[in-house]
Amino acid sequence: MTSQPIKIVVVGGSAAGPKAAAKARRMDEHASITIIQKEADLSMASCGYPYYVGGVFDDRNQLICTSAGIVRDPNFFEKAKGIDAKVLTEAVAIDRESRTVTCKHLPTGAISTLAYDKLVIATGATPLYPPVPGADLAGIHTLHSLGDADSLRAIRDANQVQRAVIVGGGLIGFEVSEALHLAGIPTTIIEKTSSILPFLDPELAKLVANHVRGFTTDIITGNGVAAFLGEAGTLTGVKLDNGTELPCQLAVVAVGVRPNVALAKSAGLDIGAQGGIAVNEFMQTSDPDIYAAGDCVECTSLITGDKVRAPYGDLANLQGRVVGQNLIQEGSATFPGITHTGICKIFDYTVGFTGLSAGRARELGLTDIETATISGLDIPPYMQGKLLISKMVADRKTGRVLGFQCLGPGDASKRVATVAMAILGKLTVADLVNADLPYAPPYSLALDHVITAAQVLENKLLGRMQGISVAEVKQRAETGADCFILDTRTPLEFEEVRLGIGETLIPLGALRGRLAELPQDRDKEIILYCRVSLRGYEAAAILQGHGWRNVKVMEGGIMAWPYPREK
Amino acid sequence: MTSQPIKIVVVGGSAAGPKAAAKARRMDEHASITIIQKEADLSMASCGYPYYVGGVFDDRNQLICTSAGIVRDPNFFEKAKGIDAKVLTEAVAIDRESRTVTCKHLPTGAISTLAYDKLVIATGATPLYPPVPGADLAGIHTLHSLGDADSLRAIRDANQVQRAVIVGGGLIGFEVSEALHLAGIPTTIIEKTSSILPFLDPELAKLVANHVRGFTTDIITGNGVAAFLGEAGTLTGVKLDNGTELPCQLAVVAVGVRPNVALAKSAGLDIGAQGGIAVNEFMQTSDPDIYAAGDCVECTSLITGDKVRAPYGDLANLQGRVVGQNLIQEGSATFPGITHTGICKIFDYTVGFTGLSAGRARELGLTDIETATISGLDIPPYMQGKLLISKMVADRKTGRVLGFQCLGPGDASKRVATVAMAILGKLTVADLVNADLPYAPPYSLALDHVITAAQVLENKLLGRMQGISVAEVKQRAETGADCFILDTRTPLEFEEVRLGIGETLIPLGALRGRLAELPQDRDKEIILYCRVSLRGYEAAAILQGHGWRNVKVMEGGIMAWPYPREK
Repeated sequence: MTSQPIKIVVVGGSAAGPKAAAKARRMDEHASITIIQKEADLSMASCGYPYYVGGVFDDRNQLICTSAGIVRDPNFFEKAKGIDAKVLTEAVAIDRESRTVTCKHLPTGAISTLAYDKLVIATGATPLYPPVPGADLAGIHTLHSLGDADSLRAIRDANQVQRAVIVGGGLIGFEVSEALHLAGIPTTIIEKTSSILPFLDPELAKLVANHVRGFTTDIITGNGVAAFLGEAGTLTGVKLDNGTELPCQLAVVAVGVRPNVALAKSAGLDIGAQGGIAVNEFMQTSDPDIYAAGDCVECTSLITGDKVRAPYGDLANLQGRVVGQNLIQEGSATFPGITHTGICKIFDYTVGFTGLSAGRARELGLTDIETATISGLDIPPYMQGKLLISKMVADRKTGRVLGFQCLGPGDASKRVATVAMAILGKLTVADLVNADLPYAPPYSLALDHVITAAQVLENKLLGRMQGISVAEVKQRAETGADCFILDTRTPLEFEEVRLGIGETLIPLGALRGRLAELPQDRDKEIILYCRVSLRGYEAAAILQGHGWRNVKVMEGGIMAWPYPREK
Repeated sequence: MTSQPIKIVVVGGSAAGPKAAAKARRMDEHASITIIQKEADLSMASCGYPYYVGGVFDDRNQLICTSAGIVRDPNFFEKAKGIDAKVLTEAVAIDRESRTVTCKHLPTGAISTLAYDKLVIATGATPLYPPVPGADLAGIHTLHSLGDADSLRAIRDANQVQRAVIVGGGLIGFEVSEALHLAGIPTTIIEKTSSILPFLDPELAKLVANHVRGFTTDIITGNGVAAFLGEAGTLTGVKLDNGTELPCQLAVVAVGVRPNVALAKSAGLDIGAQGGIAVNEFMQTSDPDIYAAGDCVECTSLITGDKVRAPYGDLANLQGRVVGQNLIQEGSATFPGITHTGICKIFDYTVGFTGLSAGRARELGLTDIETATISGLDIPPYMQGKLLISKMVADRKTGRVLGFQCLGPGDASKRVATVAMAILGKLTVADLVNADLPYAPPYSLALDHVITAAQVLENKLLGRMQGISVAEVKQRAETGADCFILDTRTPLEFEEVRLGIGETLIPLGALRGRLAELPQDRDKEIILYCRVSLRGYEAAAILQGHGWRNVKVMEGGIMAWPYPREK
């Protein structure tokens, strides 16, 4: 302990930065550690902003305090962490030769220079704006900084906005939409691409859209914002690509972020092909004395091996902890990569995903995949089980699980976490069909939703069941394709709700006695379903046993049907 | 399809049997499939019995109907499944030479003989009774069959019982206790061993016991039932091993089950060392034409490789599905084994586990293990997070996760499912510290409880933190051991609640300035804690940085302290 204490400078005080600094402190009580933070606040719980804006809680300090209720201000960092946190201070340049960072105190403009032995860049990301006219009007916001949250919260509290538009149908867009709904403000979500929530396959995204439209929220897809409209410098509406004008007094832009790499770039550090700072598995940049973490970096997909950007708060924390260890013991910790996991509360639905959607897998050239879509309860009906709809994706050759999407009013969070761990473990469908998961009626069906998804996928992989998606069935019905559509539910269920696509009702229990009512051409395409398509699957097995060769189960059944039904 | 249909006979109609039969049917529409069921009902949701008894729901049919509401009676099996289900029929003998099963119709005594090509034994298990006097008194029940559930539900509805005793402090005992509490009946749980819930390490079991004692339930441990006491053939109380007499009008015995292997044994099939029917990974008995599944078999622990009994409903279903496939395509499906996963709702707590507890691991000779106990919220405080207390166990050499216990009012179910999948994937602590789990404030902290548990365990494995259990600290305090105990919370928190074991309060934020108040002997044992021991851990790092060499963090902090506190 007689050597000179190591000098650590951390640029960025939101998530990855403070985590790296705090971990380094725990690793070395004598290190000199300084955080440079542009904003006024430190260690903000930024994922909590939508809930503060929506009034789920009212105490702003909750966003910046420890679980013991202590606000994480510079005084806290000094006393509890022994860290010098300089807020309202911007790192304007890095001199790698002299190992110094030039800083500017924003209120005074004072310039200072900090020497470092090891430097951390955790500069985060900046929200993107659509490059359209009117983007400088008052009334256009993002929800990225705590200042943004303050502004939107003030708008909520002022209660002057009649209608808002959300630009971007991703996670943040939906969270903001729900926050504004809670505040009594109707919103329209504008999504330029054809489908909301890009991590979901379109037929599942459509189910979410249906759910959201039941609240004070409308969704417009396939139509971007062409211009923000205003009067006297203030927003009065948006004009869409197709010419539609929507009046609104508030627009929240949530079309993604770009990593803040200017500081790193001007210091000559490598920037990756995805636009983030390039780091190795130790989170080390191209300069071994400079680490980077959080929204500003690229990391590795554990599924594809590709470099990806993944600007999520949990990953920033994980990466920050790895950096903190390596600052003190170089090479002692690694961040192997991510599995593309995320989740979002969207009104009464939970919408989660891990790994790749079928669409994304195919985009990446993983075309030899199989998928299974299922519907089912999270816990038994007698325990008031709620619906979940899932799609599992696997590699056809190896059976390895590549992705899982899960949504609905049921407990999707648990199922996504479970499959995220399976994907991390590179488990196969064969592993999952026999998984020993915690079962008791308050928590699960005897065969958990995840297991059932894997079992259906296994049935498809083994050729025991041929599936057809709701989208394909819809298309068959619309184009008048030559197929026979069979609903295998009870007459009572049929009475309550039906698809109305020319289907015939033969309840499963009666099917063996009514085979004569089916097309006798054994090569005719027969499509079966029920409420969730379990009975549909059993019926398919019966028909196959009686020689029908082109029998398909509509996956997920009526519960996964995102199109209008007859009631 | 011109060959003779295969003849399948399934003995047992509860869980594994019907599952095997139904899967076989889906695999082969033309097989002849018969189920022999001793009881009147079929495919009972037996894990739902406590909730029916407790009045969580009132419609008994919910226990025996499909999710579409159709009762699974012989007519349903015939119509929907094409399966001949013979209820109130007992399989009395198997003749492997002639491949026949002799059956007895219980109401009439009629004997019949069924021929089989493939046979399934799914005879389940029978509840054990303590071998003590008075066990035949009226008023002593189990909760194993639907008949048992009917009896206990009738007792609940009659509302005549003033006090009940539960014999056995395992999962079923606690579920029954809660059911009786819901019915307004105070209970005492009697556990012969020193600790309830044998899959938990004792200090965690104690936390559950503390929670339960807040309801109308008392727990007595280390004291078995010596005799059931009665008058005129009816239960009036129990006498314990220590002579205490407890008056009660109802006793529910839940001390485990023994597998029903008589039929298999008399047919000459191999019985395993654990007392269950021996099967291979195809669930095939020592006779390749006879399969067995469910509570009557032994299966393999995927952690130790040992044979174990695991009489759980979910496993019976998994095994039944494997049998169903192999009945039609021999060798087409395997059941590799179990990971010792389970869960139970105990009043406002969820109590779950997967893998091995530290105690169980040591019993099995796995002594080179490390553990970490943590407390923390499931979701952020601003989202009304609830407490979880967990213990993770890992192999010290390989870092492989061997077990996880998790309990509390928070969402333990998700965390146990997550770690169950990690254990199935043979993941290590190093894998878990960087897990990409679904994060959003309604569902998780930025670093999920599971990740934090793994990170603390990693800190211990790497020697960065030395832990001490609450039990050891209690013992130090009681024996007046020469150690210095430091509470690192704020004065306000200290005012609200404290351990009162001679501790000194120095808030973390003040510690660096008050090092002079600590014992200056750098080898003196110093024990630190806070509410959950995160600040305790940070304080430990400070002391180590200043030369103290014997610094220990009390794991889980005050929230994991199961002994009396000062308020």
